[in-house]
Amino acid sequence: MSDLFWPGDERAGGLMSGPALLAAMVRVEAAWLSALVEAGVAPAAAKDDLADLVDPVGPDDVEAIATGAESGGNPVIGLVGLLRSRVEGRNPDAARWLHRGLTSQDVLDTGLLLCVRDAVEVVRGELTAQVGRLADLADGHAGTLMAARTLTQHAVPLTFGLKAAGWLGGVLDAYDAVTALRWPAQLGGAAGTRAAWVELAAGLDDPGQVADDLAVGVADRLGLAATDPWHTNRAHVTRIGDALVGCTDAWGRIANDVLVLSRPEIGELSEGAGGGSSTMPHKANPVLSTLVRRAALTAPQLGATLHLAATESVDERADGGWHAEWAPLRDLARRTAVAASQTTALLDGLEVHADRMRATHDAALDDLRAEQRGMADLAGRAPAHHYLGTTSRIVDAALARARTHLQENR
Amino acid sequence: MSDLFWPGDERAGGLMSGPALLAAMVRVEAAWLSALVEAGVAPAAAKDDLADLVDPVGPDDVEAIATGAESGGNPVIGLVGLLRSRVEGRNPDAARWLHRGLTSQDVLDTGLLLCVRDAVEVVRGELTAQVGRLADLADGHAGTLMAARTLTQHAVPLTFGLKAAGWLGGVLDAYDAVTALRWPAQLGGAAGTRAAWVELAAGLDDPGQVADDLAVGVADRLGLAATDPWHTNRAHVTRIGDALVGCTDAWGRIANDVLVLSRPEIGELSEGAGGGSSTMPHKANPVLSTLVRRAALTAPQLGATLHLAATESVDERADGGWHAEWAPLRDLARRTAVAASQTTALLDGLEVHADRMRATHDAALDDLRAEQRGMADLAGRAPAHHYLGTTSRIVDAALARARTHLQENR
Amino acid sequence: MSDLFWPGDERAGGLMSGPALLAAMVRVEAAWLSALVEAGVAPAAAKDDLADLVDPVGPDDVEAIATGAESGGNPVIGLVGLLRSRVEGRNPDAARWLHRGLTSQDVLDTGLLLCVRDAVEVVRGELTAQVGRLADLADGHAGTLMAARTLTQHAVPLTFGLKAAGWLGGVLDAYDAVTALRWPAQLGGAAGTRAAWVELAAGLDDPGQVADDLAVGVADRLGLAATDPWHTNRAHVTRIGDALVGCTDAWGRIANDVLVLSRPEIGELSEGAGGGSSTMPHKANPVLSTLVRRAALTAPQLGATLHLAATESVDERADGGWHAEWAPLRDLARRTAVAASQTTALLDGLEVHADRMRATHDAALDDLRAEQRGMADLAGRAPAHHYLGTTSRIVDAALARARTHLQENR
Amino acid sequence: MSDLFWPGDERAGGLMSGPALLAAMVRVEAAWLSALVEAGVAPAAAKDDLADLVDPVGPDDVEAIATGAESGGNPVIGLVGLLRSRVEGRNPDAARWLHRGLTSQDVLDTGLLLCVRDAVEVVRGELTAQVGRLADLADGHAGTLMAARTLTQHAVPLTFGLKAAGWLGGVLDAYDAVTALRWPAQLGGAAGTRAAWVELAAGLDDPGQVADDLAVGVADRLGLAATDPWHTNRAHVTRIGDALVGCTDAWGRIANDVLVLSRPEIGELSEGAGGGSSTMPHKANPVLSTLVRRAALTAPQLGATLHLAATESVDERADGGWHAEWAPLRDLARRTAVAASQTTALLDGLEVHADRMRATHDAALDDLRAEQRGMADLAGRAPAHHYLGTTSRIVDAALARARTHLQENR
Repeated sequence: MSDLFWPGDERAGGLMSGPALLAAMVRVEAAWLSALVEAGVAPAAAKDDLADLVDPVGPDDVEAIATGAESGGNPVIGLVGLLRSRVEGRNPDAARWLHRGLTSQDVLDTGLLLCVRDAVEVVRGELTAQVGRLADLADGHAGTLMAARTLTQHAVPLTFGLKAAGWLGGVLDAYDAVTALRWPAQLGGAAGTRAAWVELAAGLDDPGQVADDLAVGVADRLGLAATDPWHTNRAHVTRIGDALVGCTDAWGRIANDVLVLSRPEIGELSEGAGGGSSTMPHKANPVLSTLVRRAALTAPQLGATLHLAATESVDERADGGWHAEWAPLRDLARRTAVAASQTTALLDGLEVHADRMRATHDAALDDLRAEQRGMADLAGRAPAHHYLGTTSRIVDAALARARTHLQENR
Repeated sequence: MSDLFWPGDERAGGLMSGPALLAAMVRVEAAWLSALVEAGVAPAAAKDDLADLVDPVGPDDVEAIATGAESGGNPVIGLVGLLRSRVEGRNPDAARWLHRGLTSQDVLDTGLLLCVRDAVEVVRGELTAQVGRLADLADGHAGTLMAARTLTQHAVPLTFGLKAAGWLGGVLDAYDAVTALRWPAQLGGAAGTRAAWVELAAGLDDPGQVADDLAVGVADRLGLAATDPWHTNRAHVTRIGDALVGCTDAWGRIANDVLVLSRPEIGELSEGAGGGSSTMPHKANPVLSTLVRRAALTAPQLGATLHLAATESVDERADGGWHAEWAPLRDLARRTAVAASQTTALLDGLEVHADRMRATHDAALDDLRAEQRGMADLAGRAPAHHYLGTTSRIVDAALARARTHLQENR
Repeated sequence: MSDLFWPGDERAGGLMSGPALLAAMVRVEAAWLSALVEAGVAPAAAKDDLADLVDPVGPDDVEAIATGAESGGNPVIGLVGLLRSRVEGRNPDAARWLHRGLTSQDVLDTGLLLCVRDAVEVVRGELTAQVGRLADLADGHAGTLMAARTLTQHAVPLTFGLKAAGWLGGVLDAYDAVTALRWPAQLGGAAGTRAAWVELAAGLDDPGQVADDLAVGVADRLGLAATDPWHTNRAHVTRIGDALVGCTDAWGRIANDVLVLSRPEIGELSEGAGGGSSTMPHKANPVLSTLVRRAALTAPQLGATLHLAATESVDERADGGWHAEWAPLRDLARRTAVAASQTTALLDGLEVHADRMRATHDAALDDLRAEQRGMADLAGRAPAHHYLGTTSRIVDAALARARTHLQENR
Repeated sequence: MSDLFWPGDERAGGLMSGPALLAAMVRVEAAWLSALVEAGVAPAAAKDDLADLVDPVGPDDVEAIATGAESGGNPVIGLVGLLRSRVEGRNPDAARWLHRGLTSQDVLDTGLLLCVRDAVEVVRGELTAQVGRLADLADGHAGTLMAARTLTQHAVPLTFGLKAAGWLGGVLDAYDAVTALRWPAQLGGAAGTRAAWVELAAGLDDPGQVADDLAVGVADRLGLAATDPWHTNRAHVTRIGDALVGCTDAWGRIANDVLVLSRPEIGELSEGAGGGSSTMPHKANPVLSTLVRRAALTAPQLGATLHLAATESVDERADGGWHAEWAPLRDLARRTAVAASQTTALLDGLEVHADRMRATHDAALDDLRAEQRGMADLAGRAPAHHYLGTTSRIVDAALARARTHLQENR
């Protein structure tokens, strides 16, 4: 997987790819069939793990199902047809019972969440790696003097450790948000009533309980939470989107700082290995920062599209709102995974030029201490030797939070 | 307050208005001055509650400060100047110590959060009112048969109680999200180091501790949480934005359902009092739903703007990213408060035409039961009398959640 | 008019304000009544210019109409009621004939376009002023050497004249786009059929022709183009939005360049009068650039909202799509007018530090000429003395385009 | 090409695909090399059409270049390396001269525009097909009575011909906008100065003229317009984006009308061949409308991203703004091409149920004529037999515009 239009895309591997979605949807169908059999709704003979029926790696099945998706508006109908025709030979009972009681949205929503969760797990791992690296930067540069800048102009003294601690805080907040996400299966049948389930279980004791058990059984098999249907309540999806955008927000801020501070006239930071140019041999461009910034510029609009889709969730299945979720969610999750990896690489290779920081700080000292002089005057004392306030304590607090995080994620 | 371009705006009263922001910023300055005095940083003579210095109700002060805001890029500089000049006569010490140690962003960020919190409290109240009304609808119509619709077409049987329970779930989710918001003061001084605070406290024991105490003191006075500075970590702001958009998502879905179901050909719902027309005397338009839907169509882009602003938070104070937050946050909070109230009114007045629901259900029964016939055939049994699955249990679960909510919010 | 949340808002004066919209809507009603009389549809006695009936300047009428707007979903119903009640005493025939044949959307759409056109005219004036200033900069600095920067790093030699010519090209493109806008009246009656017009004209010869004449008559009176109804074809609105966003795009690029080049370490540009700080006495912030950048960061999402509203234009009047246009269009137009004025001020005061440009250029010369050495080597010649390519010719072409523009807009 | 996440994607074929972009970039490189030779800058021996060096169809080269794109931030560096290494054997002079004088942005911008133009041409063809079909609908149903609906409620009488004429107007407007697009080559060298060109031409008469000729020569070879560099003036790109969003706006409106009018309770329209369900055998879903609506819901945010990228075009090549354009432009162009084709199919198959229209019209006649009664009363006459105003004339005007269009596009 790679994308000529999105350099670095290969970092996301197969996450949220067509093959990944196809495989996830087959997992959903398999979990459902298995639950039907276990519950005694389907006969034991229908037991089939649906393995090897579809090839999610080769392009053919993905292509066939994708191409057939338009006629029903989604790819599930074609997938079910394919599974049914291929399992027929080895297990006609499985062919009969496959997908019975589900609707397309059950399979697609639940499959999508499985895929997104994989992407989020990768993102969480990268965030934890970043926490470690940022804690090192904050700690190692707790005393590295530099100029703070507000509205682009020199403000007061700062340490690079505090700046790194600020980045760290953003990364930890992003981590907390993705970690708080819930991962419920979406299972409701044609319109969220689970009517088909009760009908199929009519011959058993307490068909309603059987239906509830089916929901739990499928969710358990997939490692998801069992909940009541959320086919038209898309807050689960928008929360994921918001959390992912929260990640690119945090990384974009780091990237923007790096881009400013690695300008040659400033020279306080540089990417370890800059990117080359097709025509200028001397160039060492801050490519990773550039590409992370790119992701951060495009993510908010994808998140907004998910919210818009959510509110357009009319009836018991929306006439476009639902369909508008899939590609934006894919793009957002995939790009977040790419940016996660790029940010880790950026931080790993980041070179801190403490000497340039100090030189600029010293040269600008008169301006940087202007506020201090006013304060000292007000307090009726000579200006103190330092003007760093509680910088150390703030850095220490960030480091303590990072340590707790790292211990919990060891 | 009202807005010719946003019908219903007056429902938000003074929330997030210029006067409200002005008053909130004065509260921040007063809390800071009070904390300075209490900590012994400023002399006791500087004690002043800054009351009656600025008139946030009349237009003059708001206008003067707003008009002066461009020269410094924000309204705080002018506010401080005004306060200082007016307090000078009655309390020259207060004039001297006012604002010392703060930066514009401290005052504006903290003041904005105070204002937004007020709006969120109003929204929470409306959400709770909606929970009560929706629980009644879900309960009262647990047996009201209607046709479920997917991709606009008849699907399977449904009850209006289940539809209302679905709306209820969305409203409860929105409530949980706004309730989880944190409200921290933003206090960091010129660049988040609190250097001026330590400088001002240089004559006291442990100036660093004094600085920490100042942060706590101000936050306590304002009923906010004390945290380390978040001047460039805007996740607090984006979380608020996301939660507010989550509200309009939930209400927009309700409005969209009402708009569909109150079409004359469907006629299953109607707004209690429809809106008139300037030319057609017979009209009873679903005006509240229309206006709620309007809010839901515009909110996601405002939320996206807040995320964009967050990621552009470069340096120790951004060169535009910060400034891009204020109006979108105002618009989003205010419109959410309006839509909250409109949704409550919509639900309060909503008329459910159970007879039309039933008639359409019965007329479409052959289609609505098509799935059932397939399931019964598969199960080898005659179709059951009902085809509502676990609808009752799902409604009951939603009602239980609502009851818990209402007890906690009594 | 000013806005505490949008510093500089007062630069837009009353453009797109509530009073402006109210006055514009009264103009539309007056033009319609006048056309009805002239066409012989309404009796001569109904002639009334509706002057002095409503006070758009004082807050009372705006407030009353705004507050009443929710019940009908828009402010026109209340306006018509107010006009009718107030004109009744002096002219009962006018009261009878007022608004007859129009629908709310006719009045609001046409009134809005009148207001937006005023804003666009102001914007055009500012763009022309900017063209003059940018032409001076491009011309005056055609030989001012500086370093080109790509991906933040030094690239090859540049002149500031070429950079200014690039800004100029953007401004001229923006001007062309707003100038190409069309300003049609929107007049269709209840559902775009003009049925009421024909009915009212039933006693005249050729009522259909009378109806067409009425459309022309109203458009002429308002200085708008007469077209067939576009009540559900909102391309006129989205084109305006796109053109306005095109303006902020162009200005935001200038602002972004100024923000980079006025960083103290670069120091190649500075705003003439920087903005102060509430706590740091030495500060001279690039405030105008910051505020222009702010506008550019928020405008695209407003434009997107207009497109979204356009596509949701269902039926013969949309159930929210239409209503979602008004405030975003107001915000976009008003902010564009503010940013227009701020950009002019920014350019007027811009200080070009040619010495710093040259010094950085010279210090980086080895890098800036790296590409040249490769080219010279390839060509088998010694590197030329200059490495500026066709810079002069490109600047000249931009200046020629500017001259043509300025002659046409003298 | 197909996309599991975007049903119908295969309708766009290879438009804006990785292979298409790769092939387009090779065309740009070939045109440049050819122009260099023709101008006498490069030796005649360097003549090479670069044919068969890269395989844009097979996945290997695309994958290799895409995977290598991160290190330089864009795919051009890898492409040039690949071309150079492969042409070396057969033509070492071509290997030496290849790409000399260009920069990555020249190749990527120009290549992207070639690809987008292909997509736009397809879109234009579909729009013309739609014009024909819509003209037939407007003409054929000029007398088909139906109820107009405003804010979802019955308003006054309408004809379906007028509704179709309204759709037609939107489609023609969209056509005009895409037809007005300009397609300029973007050629400027490292920073838009064309310095390398002049350096390479130093041995020829008038190197500046040679440089200008090179720009013309490349543009001519590619069928693009020759212009001065627009590397940081992205209005060409945003104009394309706006025009494409204008298309989905127009189609989305049609789709929304179809979705409403094909609800079973209304039944006035239906898609010729509805889409099936994975569980409900009776279903005939309006799938094409649903998928077109999906595109219309997501396009505005993509257009906004292009504007945002444009305004972030800092320096002589932006640090992320440029990179943020590629994928959104690809997605927007591709989805527009898909929606174009789906809309044509939707219109081709659309079934108009004139009887249902008439029945609803007749049943609602009392309401639909309520306005008329008021007008007749005002005019002092009995209500006329019809209440359709100038409907016929408006339809005729739309048809005339369509005929002109079709004659010009025959």
